[in-house]
Amino acid sequence: MRIPVQPMAAKMALGRLGARGRQLVAASLASAILLSPAVRADQSGLAMEINKRGEKTLEFDWPMVRVGTGEYPAGPTGVTVFHFKRKVLGAVDVSGGAPGTVNAEFLKLGYDLPELDSVVLSGGSWYGLETATAVATALKDDGVRDGYAFGEDPNIALSVGSIIYDFGSRRLNEIYPDKRLAQAAYRAAETGWFPQGSAGAGRMALSGVFFGCNAHSGQGGAFRQLGDLKIAAFTVVNSLGVITDRDGNTVACYPGKNWPEDLRTADLMQDFPRSRAEGWAGVSADDRNKNHNTTVSLVVVNQKLPHAQLQRLAKQVHASMSRGIQPFATQFDGDVLYAVSTGEMEATADDAMSSADLGAVASEVMWDAILSSVPEQPQVVPAKDTPVPAKVLRDYQGDYHFSRFVTLRVQRKGDRLFARSIGERDAYTIGRDKAVELQPVSSTRFTVPGRFPLVLDFSREDELVINPGQWQQLGEKI
Amino acid sequence: MRIPVQPMAAKMALGRLGARGRQLVAASLASAILLSPAVRADQSGLAMEINKRGEKTLEFDWPMVRVGTGEYPAGPTGVTVFHFKRKVLGAVDVSGGAPGTVNAEFLKLGYDLPELDSVVLSGGSWYGLETATAVATALKDDGVRDGYAFGEDPNIALSVGSIIYDFGSRRLNEIYPDKRLAQAAYRAAETGWFPQGSAGAGRMALSGVFFGCNAHSGQGGAFRQLGDLKIAAFTVVNSLGVITDRDGNTVACYPGKNWPEDLRTADLMQDFPRSRAEGWAGVSADDRNKNHNTTVSLVVVNQKLPHAQLQRLAKQVHASMSRGIQPFATQFDGDVLYAVSTGEMEATADDAMSSADLGAVASEVMWDAILSSVPEQPQVVPAKDTPVPAKVLRDYQGDYHFSRFVTLRVQRKGDRLFARSIGERDAYTIGRDKAVELQPVSSTRFTVPGRFPLVLDFSREDELVINPGQWQQLGEKI
Amino acid sequence: MRIPVQPMAAKMALGRLGARGRQLVAASLASAILLSPAVRADQSGLAMEINKRGEKTLEFDWPMVRVGTGEYPAGPTGVTVFHFKRKVLGAVDVSGGAPGTVNAEFLKLGYDLPELDSVVLSGGSWYGLETATAVATALKDDGVRDGYAFGEDPNIALSVGSIIYDFGSRRLNEIYPDKRLAQAAYRAAETGWFPQGSAGAGRMALSGVFFGCNAHSGQGGAFRQLGDLKIAAFTVVNSLGVITDRDGNTVACYPGKNWPEDLRTADLMQDFPRSRAEGWAGVSADDRNKNHNTTVSLVVVNQKLPHAQLQRLAKQVHASMSRGIQPFATQFDGDVLYAVSTGEMEATADDAMSSADLGAVASEVMWDAILSSVPEQPQVVPAKDTPVPAKVLRDYQGDYHFSRFVTLRVQRKGDRLFARSIGERDAYTIGRDKAVELQPVSSTRFTVPGRFPLVLDFSREDELVINPGQWQQLGEKI
Amino acid sequence: MRIPVQPMAAKMALGRLGARGRQLVAASLASAILLSPAVRADQSGLAMEINKRGEKTLEFDWPMVRVGTGEYPAGPTGVTVFHFKRKVLGAVDVSGGAPGTVNAEFLKLGYDLPELDSVVLSGGSWYGLETATAVATALKDDGVRDGYAFGEDPNIALSVGSIIYDFGSRRLNEIYPDKRLAQAAYRAAETGWFPQGSAGAGRMALSGVFFGCNAHSGQGGAFRQLGDLKIAAFTVVNSLGVITDRDGNTVACYPGKNWPEDLRTADLMQDFPRSRAEGWAGVSADDRNKNHNTTVSLVVVNQKLPHAQLQRLAKQVHASMSRGIQPFATQFDGDVLYAVSTGEMEATADDAMSSADLGAVASEVMWDAILSSVPEQPQVVPAKDTPVPAKVLRDYQGDYHFSRFVTLRVQRKGDRLFARSIGERDAYTIGRDKAVELQPVSSTRFTVPGRFPLVLDFSREDELVINPGQWQQLGEKI
Repeated sequence: MRIPVQPMAAKMALGRLGARGRQLVAASLASAILLSPAVRADQSGLAMEINKRGEKTLEFDWPMVRVGTGEYPAGPTGVTVFHFKRKVLGAVDVSGGAPGTVNAEFLKLGYDLPELDSVVLSGGSWYGLETATAVATALKDDGVRDGYAFGEDPNIALSVGSIIYDFGSRRLNEIYPDKRLAQAAYRAAETGWFPQGSAGAGRMALSGVFFGCNAHSGQGGAFRQLGDLKIAAFTVVNSLGVITDRDGNTVACYPGKNWPEDLRTADLMQDFPRSRAEGWAGVSADDRNKNHNTTVSLVVVNQKLPHAQLQRLAKQVHASMSRGIQPFATQFDGDVLYAVSTGEMEATADDAMSSADLGAVASEVMWDAILSSVPEQPQVVPAKDTPVPAKVLRDYQGDYHFSRFVTLRVQRKGDRLFARSIGERDAYTIGRDKAVELQPVSSTRFTVPGRFPLVLDFSREDELVINPGQWQQLGEKI
Repeated sequence: MRIPVQPMAAKMALGRLGARGRQLVAASLASAILLSPAVRADQSGLAMEINKRGEKTLEFDWPMVRVGTGEYPAGPTGVTVFHFKRKVLGAVDVSGGAPGTVNAEFLKLGYDLPELDSVVLSGGSWYGLETATAVATALKDDGVRDGYAFGEDPNIALSVGSIIYDFGSRRLNEIYPDKRLAQAAYRAAETGWFPQGSAGAGRMALSGVFFGCNAHSGQGGAFRQLGDLKIAAFTVVNSLGVITDRDGNTVACYPGKNWPEDLRTADLMQDFPRSRAEGWAGVSADDRNKNHNTTVSLVVVNQKLPHAQLQRLAKQVHASMSRGIQPFATQFDGDVLYAVSTGEMEATADDAMSSADLGAVASEVMWDAILSSVPEQPQVVPAKDTPVPAKVLRDYQGDYHFSRFVTLRVQRKGDRLFARSIGERDAYTIGRDKAVELQPVSSTRFTVPGRFPLVLDFSREDELVINPGQWQQLGEKI
Repeated sequence: MRIPVQPMAAKMALGRLGARGRQLVAASLASAILLSPAVRADQSGLAMEINKRGEKTLEFDWPMVRVGTGEYPAGPTGVTVFHFKRKVLGAVDVSGGAPGTVNAEFLKLGYDLPELDSVVLSGGSWYGLETATAVATALKDDGVRDGYAFGEDPNIALSVGSIIYDFGSRRLNEIYPDKRLAQAAYRAAETGWFPQGSAGAGRMALSGVFFGCNAHSGQGGAFRQLGDLKIAAFTVVNSLGVITDRDGNTVACYPGKNWPEDLRTADLMQDFPRSRAEGWAGVSADDRNKNHNTTVSLVVVNQKLPHAQLQRLAKQVHASMSRGIQPFATQFDGDVLYAVSTGEMEATADDAMSSADLGAVASEVMWDAILSSVPEQPQVVPAKDTPVPAKVLRDYQGDYHFSRFVTLRVQRKGDRLFARSIGERDAYTIGRDKAVELQPVSSTRFTVPGRFPLVLDFSREDELVINPGQWQQLGEKI
Repeated sequence: MRIPVQPMAAKMALGRLGARGRQLVAASLASAILLSPAVRADQSGLAMEINKRGEKTLEFDWPMVRVGTGEYPAGPTGVTVFHFKRKVLGAVDVSGGAPGTVNAEFLKLGYDLPELDSVVLSGGSWYGLETATAVATALKDDGVRDGYAFGEDPNIALSVGSIIYDFGSRRLNEIYPDKRLAQAAYRAAETGWFPQGSAGAGRMALSGVFFGCNAHSGQGGAFRQLGDLKIAAFTVVNSLGVITDRDGNTVACYPGKNWPEDLRTADLMQDFPRSRAEGWAGVSADDRNKNHNTTVSLVVVNQKLPHAQLQRLAKQVHASMSRGIQPFATQFDGDVLYAVSTGEMEATADDAMSSADLGAVASEVMWDAILSSVPEQPQVVPAKDTPVPAKVLRDYQGDYHFSRFVTLRVQRKGDRLFARSIGERDAYTIGRDKAVELQPVSSTRFTVPGRFPLVLDFSREDELVINPGQWQQLGEKI
């Protein structure tokens, strides 16, 4: 599903923008530049993608669980809304040192009464918490929850949520998932699906920063049914730690120099800090920044559980994630896990389990979810010895504006092309100190060789696209 | 300060609306009626009042503390934004059984690093939490916090907040303080002032429901300076308990039958549950609804404190409020207190205090704040033996639409006027079961005699105003 | 009831000790002096008083609640054991900044299963926690709980407990309630009674140190029955704050200079810190020591409550104690409150209440309990112009050993008597710097005039009794 | 070191007891039988083993950390005392659903002031908490902490502690580590050592009950030094989960039928609940009892950390244990981890680390500690076709008393020997319903074939030893 806020702007995510679309995007970006009280950053013109299917999609049969995603491709960044068909029981476990939460306190009071309407996971760091409150107000505005308690029934929407940090070294702008995006995602929520990889809240996630891996991650989901018992696990992995499979392999990592092909997490961990010293050899200081990770998760069971046991389930599953993500629950992660019991299956049913057994199964489902969060990784593209005509290079020259903080100056020197960051921030490995050479891959594409993929695409008119594809950054010539 | 979103609509709070203004309000209210996905409740046309001066204003000299208020007179409901000139240290204590919070978890981690930008208190129950996230995104959109950490400094806005329930028996609509209102209030924030009574987040508060007092309360603030030490306390009192002064008197209460003039809280409490049985004699079942109270508070000191001691201060001051509000911290209150240290005065300064001493002073300042939250109460207006011409009464006949849930049918029978609620909810003591007589106070004003003031004003064309004044409810003839 | 561990030593609490008894006490005290590994402080010879009736006794009819007290008069110090006839549901609220707890974590997990056997309140600061574990092991040793779970029933004893600090300026020794004392108290526990004042855990408590009041307090208890609903509240008040009645009067305080007869707490608080500056005029630095206060409490209801609501009850009642003790819940108090539901009355019973209503009543019962904790205060005895013969004074001369840290040197100079502390600590206002004159009250009793009572009694052979009576301190001539 | 409380009884752990020793043990065990108030279970005559060297000993150089262990071989059960040379900073993380704690609340207040003297880990379930309070009172009795604050320094001993459940299916008696044992262990504490395996608090531990593995575990310890940075980790593993090494192997497990030689935990977990259904085939209902597990741990660093960061370290390391023990942190475990900073190395030192880095290293040290907790496992001994003369078998006949709850009746039928439990509890797989045949291994040793080792040794006169060796159970012929 796709909501064309502005007919042309909507194309932005798909490819070349028309003139009007470009103006529109430029206008919204430019608004950040002047930043007088009159001209503030304004996201109201940004194109949205709603319920975009990703590389992979989990399909599962559970009418109680509705999922909607909203993305701003211009970030990229996004939000994932879980909305339950009726109020459910919720619990929360906070284990990271930099969490963002809405209404977590209420979930900790231990009431057995189902009160929870939705769990919202989002990009945008603390700014993205706007999505959690937005779903609550959408529930009210749409008349699903009326804000008034008729008789005994509580009828105020309870929406909780948490966020990942997807700014900083991940991208060159500060667009965040906002009220408009979240309400659109909520209203488009459907049952039976969950997009995996670079989608929803996991649109611009990274993992393994602890060892300098800096691999793309995203959101993962898995589902298991045992008789009548249903368990679903969802997670947005933006972790300091590396993702690890059940055989101990590091699943996604741009390896450091001299690292073995078959990288094993146990080796990295046991050899730490030496392993990282080597791993960090090619990593910029910016990328080493530590405060900016988080894994936010949700586990849903259909078995009725008293709150105290649902809380135990949350603890057990959250701790178990230390297997699939290493290290986990650090000061520099904001890890939060929500646990939900829909109460559709009685605790006395044949397929019901103790909280510990349920936790054991759910921990495995969660591990599957973690593994499914990894998208296909872009490859490092080697430079080629392809001379590009000076006339062409001259066309590429100019200042490209990416956001309030990032502008790139591209300059030709003879038959070589150079780039330097002239804004407040570096653009990946293109720093502010001195210009780096852009080495040709083709006549329109260039790279700066290094540990991580970095492609600069000049094929669009008056635009520079860095890392074309899912995580691309768009610079407007100014 | 006042932001006339729609030039005419803005008048709504002041008195008679022009035709265009009425249409506008009607449109926004009507939007809730149909409630198809295409026509949702939409607050974007509602008039705002920003930084409205109330009956009383606390003036205090503290450049670090900026206060902005935003109100929707059509609720009425509102928000109070506290914004600190630079990041400050925060702590939180949750003692009620029905809290709403944004980012409380972070404040509990115990870091000594100042991270907090703003504390937002709001009406609107859980929906009003949108105001806390809105201030964070305003800080970003305005470029105050950029979402990116340059160097060592954290530069993501941290906004926390809590809410009161001001729906239900308090008013006849479900308008809530939203992103637009909160961002306007934040942007208008000023130093040196704080409006007391029916203002900001305390625009539509009630107190003493526990004993059926149902007196209007609001927001209170107080300030004390001892040498260089500064302490400010702010609170939005919407409490189940009754407000009590230092001599033990119940400060605001519509007394039950046969209650003494000089009502003492200790007597009410000690005599409970008998005292309430009597107190509740004239209180409708709706008004007895218990889940809908909350006192949310903020204490600010300029002394530098380690987080652990700031947390102790929060606990001590919060507990001390049990003196000024009785009962306090119940399951049916959502009491939350934030404590802030601006760190302007060193802990080694001459005027510095231990956390216990500081807590003792701050508890007194908080008590002052509680007392200052009480606005002047409307009086019960007795019916008069004034015959109103049948022709006039006929003009008053009609169905008056207050909100999606509340419509009043006014009918004349001979020379008497009757009203009945024909929507889903009662309108105060005008119920859905049978029509009650409206007894004249003047030719345009009527009352339904009872424990609480209830005035119906027909003086406006095609409108019915219930309880004209600060807390008035506006019904449109349909 | 009284357990004469050593036939003679047992007399110690009653009056003059025989020679053998004195030796025994001296031996146990002396053991602390040398303190080689071979000779450690050993309390095994101390006389105990079990279930001693105090000045006042609460009588109440509730077979589920058994109370036992144990005291070491030589401290004095003591323990109060609450043992429930069958396992009950428990919750805990910690609001002070210096708590001591056993097993509080378990009570916070929110299980609805009754698991709690006993709540133990004790003197002795953290050392006194030995009493809580001692009751658990007594339950096992006696075969009441067997340490093994047969079938589904949990059968391990769960004993929780908290302590007050009753050392320091309160007394001149470090005797603490230990395993032996607690097990004796548990085994002697009876239904229907609770001794008030200087008894059990409240044997050596003080209150109002915050304002220099330094009045004796103790343990209080109250009970209320409303139809079938039963509520009991117990508290050991050793508070920084002053005890206050429902009319606002400060209940117990040795007033500062020029303080009014009818001291009102609201005045002290509102006038703080000036009020304390005056109040502390005659208070020694030792007595101002702030870390040494605590109020530990227990509220018991017979209504069945889910854990979440029992927890709300604990919060509400604990906060309400801020009325009866001011200030309360400070960093320098270790306030802990346990809440217990015996579950004897169903939540659907006619007399059942919501947690908020229950909390309101229980808060009043707790206030009654606080007030009942105040024992009759010793009076300041004025010196008299009674010449005491020099020969008599000469007999009084000598070094009196009170404990490892306190020894008093009494010297005659002409017809006047002087005392100086020659150990590591002061003995009340008799300091280490210079000798103070002991002024005669009678030929055997002397005083040091001041704000607080201080009587030195030389009537026993080879002993000096300071403040003869309930809180007396015994010094052996060496 | 060894403390011969009773010269002969002390031999009990070493081999055959003399007559007087047997009487002594029998007396102490018999005391539990009658159980009148006059004759209670009394452990005062039990032989202790203090600082017994085990199979393996960790040696490490850290003068601040003193370790003492005390064991009752008759349990067997024990306690491990960690005592720090000076007060240190402590934090705690509780992640299991059935914890036992002393003073955990204080560690959660976030003060940066070092207050902690000792951490005590113990067997005996909640009864074993007596060991934590006992170390505090020993510190006082020995004059190390005096209970009084001279000047500014706090000088009250703070001892915290947690316990494991080592009763139930693990052994046939209810002996618990008590005050006497803990004080002896504290007083014998030495630096530089830590016994691994079946020692101290881990004397009678089990692991892997979740899958029916029921392997012996114990206490583990590991140490790593990186430059000046020191990290030690200690854990008592009595876990529901199975212990797992870095290659994914299940380290200790009596395998279920048809289980592979090289058992991998990932397979067990992923295949759960089917894997357990098979695993539990030969496990008695008693052994499946779920409430009786716990892993209690301690991590110590010498780097100075603010409390908030020490708390993060605790969280991270605790969560990481989910790798080495699977499942972990369940409702049926009482997992608690204490974290201590001795503050010997400044946070600004060259070798200092962030809390996340420190946590990563400490997590590995903790994994080493977990692995080192596994003692050598007893083997299942096959029955042999060795006829034992009937005359000999007749000698073995009789009732053997193991404890208050367990008595075994051994009867000869022809040339075969049978046993049945005639007390309240089963003795391992020898149940109460019907007699099972004891099959000869030699003329003095018999077995009941099954998944787990079960050896009955009749070689001692008038005694039956079950599972001779470290975990032996002694039955007295009556």
